[in-house]
Amino acid sequence: MYRKRTDLALETRELHAKKGQEDGIVVTTRQAGEVKITAMEISPAGEASCGKAAGRYVTLEAGAVWRAEPEAFETAVSELAKELRAMLPAGEGCVLAAGLGNREITADSLGPKVTDRLLVTRHIKLLEKDLFASAGFGELAALASGVLGQTGMESAEIMAGIVKQIKPRCVIAIDALASRRLERLASTVQLSDTGIRPGSGVSNHRAAFNRETLGVPVISVGVPTVVDAGTLAFDLLEELADREGFSPDDATMEKIVEGLQCGSGKDFFVTPKDSDALTTGAARLISAAINLAVHRGMTQRELAEYQSGW
Amino acid sequence: MYRKRTDLALETRELHAKKGQEDGIVVTTRQAGEVKITAMEISPAGEASCGKAAGRYVTLEAGAVWRAEPEAFETAVSELAKELRAMLPAGEGCVLAAGLGNREITADSLGPKVTDRLLVTRHIKLLEKDLFASAGFGELAALASGVLGQTGMESAEIMAGIVKQIKPRCVIAIDALASRRLERLASTVQLSDTGIRPGSGVSNHRAAFNRETLGVPVISVGVPTVVDAGTLAFDLLEELADREGFSPDDATMEKIVEGLQCGSGKDFFVTPKDSDALTTGAARLISAAINLAVHRGMTQRELAEYQSGW
Amino acid sequence: MYRKRTDLALETRELHAKKGQEDGIVVTTRQAGEVKITAMEISPAGEASCGKAAGRYVTLEAGAVWRAEPEAFETAVSELAKELRAMLPAGEGCVLAAGLGNREITADSLGPKVTDRLLVTRHIKLLEKDLFASAGFGELAALASGVLGQTGMESAEIMAGIVKQIKPRCVIAIDALASRRLERLASTVQLSDTGIRPGSGVSNHRAAFNRETLGVPVISVGVPTVVDAGTLAFDLLEELADREGFSPDDATMEKIVEGLQCGSGKDFFVTPKDSDALTTGAARLISAAINLAVHRGMTQRELAEYQSGW
Amino acid sequence: MYRKRTDLALETRELHAKKGQEDGIVVTTRQAGEVKITAMEISPAGEASCGKAAGRYVTLEAGAVWRAEPEAFETAVSELAKELRAMLPAGEGCVLAAGLGNREITADSLGPKVTDRLLVTRHIKLLEKDLFASAGFGELAALASGVLGQTGMESAEIMAGIVKQIKPRCVIAIDALASRRLERLASTVQLSDTGIRPGSGVSNHRAAFNRETLGVPVISVGVPTVVDAGTLAFDLLEELADREGFSPDDATMEKIVEGLQCGSGKDFFVTPKDSDALTTGAARLISAAINLAVHRGMTQRELAEYQSGW
Repeated sequence: MYRKRTDLALETRELHAKKGQEDGIVVTTRQAGEVKITAMEISPAGEASCGKAAGRYVTLEAGAVWRAEPEAFETAVSELAKELRAMLPAGEGCVLAAGLGNREITADSLGPKVTDRLLVTRHIKLLEKDLFASAGFGELAALASGVLGQTGMESAEIMAGIVKQIKPRCVIAIDALASRRLERLASTVQLSDTGIRPGSGVSNHRAAFNRETLGVPVISVGVPTVVDAGTLAFDLLEELADREGFSPDDATMEKIVEGLQCGSGKDFFVTPKDSDALTTGAARLISAAINLAVHRGMTQRELAEYQSGW
Repeated sequence: MYRKRTDLALETRELHAKKGQEDGIVVTTRQAGEVKITAMEISPAGEASCGKAAGRYVTLEAGAVWRAEPEAFETAVSELAKELRAMLPAGEGCVLAAGLGNREITADSLGPKVTDRLLVTRHIKLLEKDLFASAGFGELAALASGVLGQTGMESAEIMAGIVKQIKPRCVIAIDALASRRLERLASTVQLSDTGIRPGSGVSNHRAAFNRETLGVPVISVGVPTVVDAGTLAFDLLEELADREGFSPDDATMEKIVEGLQCGSGKDFFVTPKDSDALTTGAARLISAAINLAVHRGMTQRELAEYQSGW
Repeated sequence: MYRKRTDLALETRELHAKKGQEDGIVVTTRQAGEVKITAMEISPAGEASCGKAAGRYVTLEAGAVWRAEPEAFETAVSELAKELRAMLPAGEGCVLAAGLGNREITADSLGPKVTDRLLVTRHIKLLEKDLFASAGFGELAALASGVLGQTGMESAEIMAGIVKQIKPRCVIAIDALASRRLERLASTVQLSDTGIRPGSGVSNHRAAFNRETLGVPVISVGVPTVVDAGTLAFDLLEELADREGFSPDDATMEKIVEGLQCGSGKDFFVTPKDSDALTTGAARLISAAINLAVHRGMTQRELAEYQSGW
Repeated sequence: MYRKRTDLALETRELHAKKGQEDGIVVTTRQAGEVKITAMEISPAGEASCGKAAGRYVTLEAGAVWRAEPEAFETAVSELAKELRAMLPAGEGCVLAAGLGNREITADSLGPKVTDRLLVTRHIKLLEKDLFASAGFGELAALASGVLGQTGMESAEIMAGIVKQIKPRCVIAIDALASRRLERLASTVQLSDTGIRPGSGVSNHRAAFNRETLGVPVISVGVPTVVDAGTLAFDLLEELADREGFSPDDATMEKIVEGLQCGSGKDFFVTPKDSDALTTGAARLISAAINLAVHRGMTQRELAEYQSGW
């Protein structure tokens, strides 16, 4: 049967909760101002039951508030930075940020838009040690690695090679995600220490992007910017059937959804009209949080000024 | 009730044909290689029955063929140029191309991507008369006028002002369109001599863009790049109801579709994952056709070489 | 003889001061923190003697300080906003910002980079009156009008048309300038109430951009980003001659400078290697100052937050 | 003393020829239509005398002709492809193109503009073997690796890592160059089998980019887009001294050139005003030549159609 698609652990749980399968998942929530933070620890047993890789998933939800109010924005940045710091491994070596996705497609441009805004410092440490030491900088490097159709290479291949060369202590992979619900688009951030699985993200990465393939811990940060059109269609049809009190068989449902796409075999997604502003806003939030998490000697205000000065 | 949205005359007719209202519409079709060309003449009576402004609409359909085969591409360019030439008014003054839409949103970037590729010559005529005269050029000017949120001005206001100043003999407005069917995305071109109505296009122009508001004839050229999410949802629900043999009432349908959007009041659209390549391809086709239609002394090959030289 | 090129009133005066021609120019200076502000009032008599249009020119100089220190940046923004406000005419109608220059050429991209960062509000006033009134907004519209080779139209033609249509109370034209001295590049801002003359700017506007051609007052704001290569060459040769104690004749000098360009008739300019960062920084300064000058009910901090929120 | 800067072997020879040091350099020239091709073989002895790494350098010169005439453009493409093919090592593994330089600075954007236009196929070989085999494709991958200030990593580090991972049979590095003469800007292409030395290019690469650092053969392709401002100044001053018959001492010369830059320690360069069109044109030429050299089963026409289709 058609598999409903989501990259959010929160929604995976939602899909499976209906079936009462929740062993091996520990959930805690807290509230910081207008931001709701949910942490899920999925054990190997939980992985088997919900299909999501074992590890830690943290979700920040704040709805439209983030956009309109600078204070909510600042709270979201500092909470996200706090969670990120808790995941960053100690030790030598820089943090390497990988901006995944296609810069030319608005809904897939989150990763490159984040790396564009990072305060990279690895070269300063190498070239101007004193300036580096005195300024409160941590060591950060970043690359937007493009997509398969542009480079002929998987992002995982590119980053695995660079990891071998520069030996970072971890990789932070930033990527646009698919959610199951339109309401979540651009209003939720997901952070995880499990990396990225094949088939995730808007670009549908074919290779895993995790500790096994890269050789160092991989933290992933993402924001849902699209809903898969087929997933949306199934949800709609189910709701209608539910309301009208009948149960269409799976074959009928699939026939309708297939008809929708005219057998073109193409992937379609649903996205808000103002996806440029939403993606840019999400990129500002995530880049500010990564800057703050890595450059421990600096405040959010100082980092913002760094970016707004000449 | 929810109004299904389409910018294509072909589909408007489809929606209304069901109700048997076709007075005042004359349709002729022809085939050129793999390209099917449909011309619709809508009379004022037809306008009343189908809700589409009276005038001439020409649609080129070629499906995926255009993308894969250079010959089909060339056929499409020359057929589109032929239809465009037939609509261009004779007389003095340049042709002014207006690239509508938001460059930052892939599915809405068709207009700016077309104006980027036009061979503008109006200034050459003013500055180097002899070069202009000898080269087989027509007189072309172009502007991508941005969107309301970027400029604070309607595209129609901007272009109306420029028309007063430079007095072109007509305006060609290029815009991304909304279709009702996913299969039509990026595979159909619509050409019309009626301009653009309020609420059309991906950006939802608020002001009309036609002879009345601009003061000169307005030809519009567009390619559908999105399907409105609500329209898609209604079509899906209707099909399920149809297959299952029941008639849900309108209120139920609307409730489901509203629920989908969580009362966010936001607009969502559906678009293919490779919308960057599709939009760029469509922009190449339309720009080549406009160049060919305006610069009458040059061949398609010469114009292509113009763009590929240093 | 070769005419040394500068768009800065400060430097024009420098060139002419040597010859003792300073009638009709009144200069006052003041210091605000690290920023030096020079105001020059050129009377019609001064226009005749120094060749610069009669009017008011204000120059802010702060050297490299602006770039490194957020406080100096804020001082520069508030001083520039203060001078701008003093030039803005009272009365009805919006302020229309015109971003001049070629976005594709780094050193010429100042204008478009500024309009990209403006908080335009004219449409909010038209569409959501209450939000507009309560927020402390002034009325601002903006357009980057491209260059002749891209549009086939002079920026002056485009803006003159738009002025007729939307009737702003004034135009602010932002443009990259040519200086005579490398040291001034990206460290000086010039503000003037005289508009822009033919031949000024990096793109060499062919048409004047002032009250006569646009029909409303024109304020120009610019930052030098290039030095004309021929001007630099002459200055170098003169200095060598001076140091070595001889006077080469003009013909020799011109021959050398011509030889430099191989009779290509091309224009060359000199620009710093990091012109992208310098131009972006200058654009941030100018856009912040325009936002602050127009949106009188808001503080610099609030405006910055507006841009950093989602 | 100040070292005059050039990245062109042709000009290095010119500088040294004056001193009669030409041992170990073998030069052959040929003409193809309007294009002049010069091949220089520098032996280790030649390396010692002229300071340029031992290896093969091929230069194509065609002046402004390339820009204006499609036929001259096609000749240049096919000649450059022929020379490139002769340098490509036989054997397994893909060709990896590295677009060096800063996309945000027009004169330094050649590398990224070339990789944007390459027909990458490595992933097609992996994913769709049959399509790959039947189409006459060679195996090509490409990446624009950004600059130090954007990534915190040297391009040489990034590419060395990727080379270890994907094991290409060679790397083609594309980069904007510095010439000594304004007349050469954008009218000369240099091809070499020696890679790129520290301090070369517009971005001043700090690490070598050659067989030693990357582990596979490195072919470099570049076009001069800038002249170093100090180099230009020295040449000018020398010419004046020469014409006037005196010999200024080195200290005087250096003082003047230093004064020019006001001790800012900054690098300035000289570049033509239309550097966007020139760089784009050069990128089209080089990308067409690389596509043709690698995809041996396809013609120039077919490759162009590939890029102009949807």
